[in-house]
Amino acid sequence: MNVYEKSLELHEKLHGKLGIDSKIEISSHDDLSLVYTPGVAAVCQEIAKDKSNLYKYTSKGGLIAVVTNGTAVLGLGNIGAAAGLPVMEGKCLLFKRFANIDAFPICVESENIEEFINIVKKISIPFGGINLEDIKAPDCFEIEKRLQDELDIPVFHDDQHGTAIVALAALINALKVTDKDKKEVNIVISGAGAAGSAICRLLLKYGCENILVCDSKGIIGESRMDLADNEDKIWIAKNTNRKSLNGSLGDAMKGADVLIGVSAPKIVSKEMVGSMNSKSVVFALANPEPEIMPNQALEAGALIIGTGRSDFGNQINNALAFPGVFKAALKYGINKFTDEMFVAAAEALANFVENLDVNHIVPSLFDEGVSDTVSDAIGRIHNR
Amino acid sequence: MNVYEKSLELHEKLHGKLGIDSKIEISSHDDLSLVYTPGVAAVCQEIAKDKSNLYKYTSKGGLIAVVTNGTAVLGLGNIGAAAGLPVMEGKCLLFKRFANIDAFPICVESENIEEFINIVKKISIPFGGINLEDIKAPDCFEIEKRLQDELDIPVFHDDQHGTAIVALAALINALKVTDKDKKEVNIVISGAGAAGSAICRLLLKYGCENILVCDSKGIIGESRMDLADNEDKIWIAKNTNRKSLNGSLGDAMKGADVLIGVSAPKIVSKEMVGSMNSKSVVFALANPEPEIMPNQALEAGALIIGTGRSDFGNQINNALAFPGVFKAALKYGINKFTDEMFVAAAEALANFVENLDVNHIVPSLFDEGVSDTVSDAIGRIHNR
Repeated sequence: MNVYEKSLELHEKLHGKLGIDSKIEISSHDDLSLVYTPGVAAVCQEIAKDKSNLYKYTSKGGLIAVVTNGTAVLGLGNIGAAAGLPVMEGKCLLFKRFANIDAFPICVESENIEEFINIVKKISIPFGGINLEDIKAPDCFEIEKRLQDELDIPVFHDDQHGTAIVALAALINALKVTDKDKKEVNIVISGAGAAGSAICRLLLKYGCENILVCDSKGIIGESRMDLADNEDKIWIAKNTNRKSLNGSLGDAMKGADVLIGVSAPKIVSKEMVGSMNSKSVVFALANPEPEIMPNQALEAGALIIGTGRSDFGNQINNALAFPGVFKAALKYGINKFTDEMFVAAAEALANFVENLDVNHIVPSLFDEGVSDTVSDAIGRIHNR
Repeated sequence: MNVYEKSLELHEKLHGKLGIDSKIEISSHDDLSLVYTPGVAAVCQEIAKDKSNLYKYTSKGGLIAVVTNGTAVLGLGNIGAAAGLPVMEGKCLLFKRFANIDAFPICVESENIEEFINIVKKISIPFGGINLEDIKAPDCFEIEKRLQDELDIPVFHDDQHGTAIVALAALINALKVTDKDKKEVNIVISGAGAAGSAICRLLLKYGCENILVCDSKGIIGESRMDLADNEDKIWIAKNTNRKSLNGSLGDAMKGADVLIGVSAPKIVSKEMVGSMNSKSVVFALANPEPEIMPNQALEAGALIIGTGRSDFGNQINNALAFPGVFKAALKYGINKFTDEMFVAAAEALANFVENLDVNHIVPSLFDEGVSDTVSDAIGRIHNR
């Protein structure tokens, strides 16, 4: 059986990967009178007096909502909120496994931005944070910004910032290994969706200066006449591509030091990698099939290769970041994340790697202490 | 410490009564590839093809949403969705404890009926059933009906039907003990909110013929001029009060055999109980303080007394019903409950009691097999 058949079998056997756990044994009428009526009335009244008591008396302070509308699920596209549920349940398991945080899937059947925002706001009470997941660009930008502005709990679109944090961590270590400088390297980002856009912004924040972002039509720049409605791409055009280049992804990659692919399978050829600078770095993160397979990139001369997959080395996986990000939020009472926190998280992840070499530029998911490292770094920024 | 202080202390210690449980250990990249990407993509695609696969591959078939807007929480009134959360969490624990069913609290911050319905519909994907809770009358009637019509999962307003099932079970056994006939007894229901209305309807369905329902203004009947906007009370006026009586609750109780109170503390006096028929039955279910205290009702001549409280005998508690009701729904694939099912559940609960006497007319919550008994009875109706 292949991984897909095995996964179907496992899901059918489990009938769902998540369960609800009672934190207290109920074995008598006395127990009942405390967890339920009449005793619970006192707890209700304390919260009616002051909503912040939700953190003191309910699960809110330890519970994250994993929220989608199913418009960009994995590499499968807009398959709908129902078909996205298995991914959301899986994400909740990762929260539990890697940060011991409780998380619950919320699948909202709406592609209307205003309606989606309204629904999430109005059911947010039990949650201490919102992890947005698998929502298509550019809708995800507006949704994240509005929810963050209008709610008093932290909101984090993992496809953007989780990917960006881990990509930056990998880049930091790749630059150490190749002995190149962040201000000088030429970086090409393939893909201008949620992930590509967020990686671009975080790399700029970190201090990278020479970035080209390519979408399916090629290099994004101010001369592109087709960006009219896309505020995000207009921002990218203004803040990258200093030399106002035009051309294809292939053109962009000529002489580049780093390629970060968050786009589509098989769109990068050996020739394109061969045209890069010496000691080139290729992060081919399209999932499950990368922009170029590692062995091909290696044959074409790349020195450091990373993918999103667990069956190759250097797995650049969001799960290195989001558990620690929310651990910090819940531990330090952070109600809004900042780019500065994300940079600190990336630096901490990079520094976590011992015995750094071309095949070990990021921690393994199963290394003990990864989420604490990320959480501590974010906490230091918050407490500063 | 009293029960309220103890409950506050317990809730603060637990920081929430509910947790999320992973049904599978994740200890390797191989495990991850099955519960999450890439393997999970196959599961998503099966659901995209056919939504009914949610039952096969996700937690849907074993998960209930406990949904409120906080407009009628316990006896506390409209304290809001946030303040209602501790009750919803408690309810979820009862689902787990008494039926081994997973349940999760959904607190919707909206008192607008249309908006509330829309939100619940659009986040219903992960759930196999909806338990509505602590929603004020008459809104609860419209909300339940519309959700049941527009969703393909069962919807159950526990304050109505859970209360009605257990009240009917208690009545069935009280009539056995007092050797009275359902068609002949005079029954007074004090309270015409969610519970009173549902009890009235279920007793009529069961075959009781002489029912008077009183609200805060007295006996409901067709001569009442103040019911214009309340469809539910108009229905009650048409279907009860055959002799077209007017008057107060005290007037209604004269010569009555049974009083079922789902109204307000202390509104029934010893004199009122004293005016009832011989071998009178008093269910004083207002919580936490009943319409009349058991010792007073006893002194006034009542033969059988029940309350909602765990510190007296004959506890007429919804938790005898709702766990088994949803167990049946999930086990037998029931997508809509009927009054016939509720009558069958009440009869099964009544028959469950061994050694029936004035102090033992309903099972104890902690008796083994209560929820299975209810579930089996409902299943028999469904499979007929």
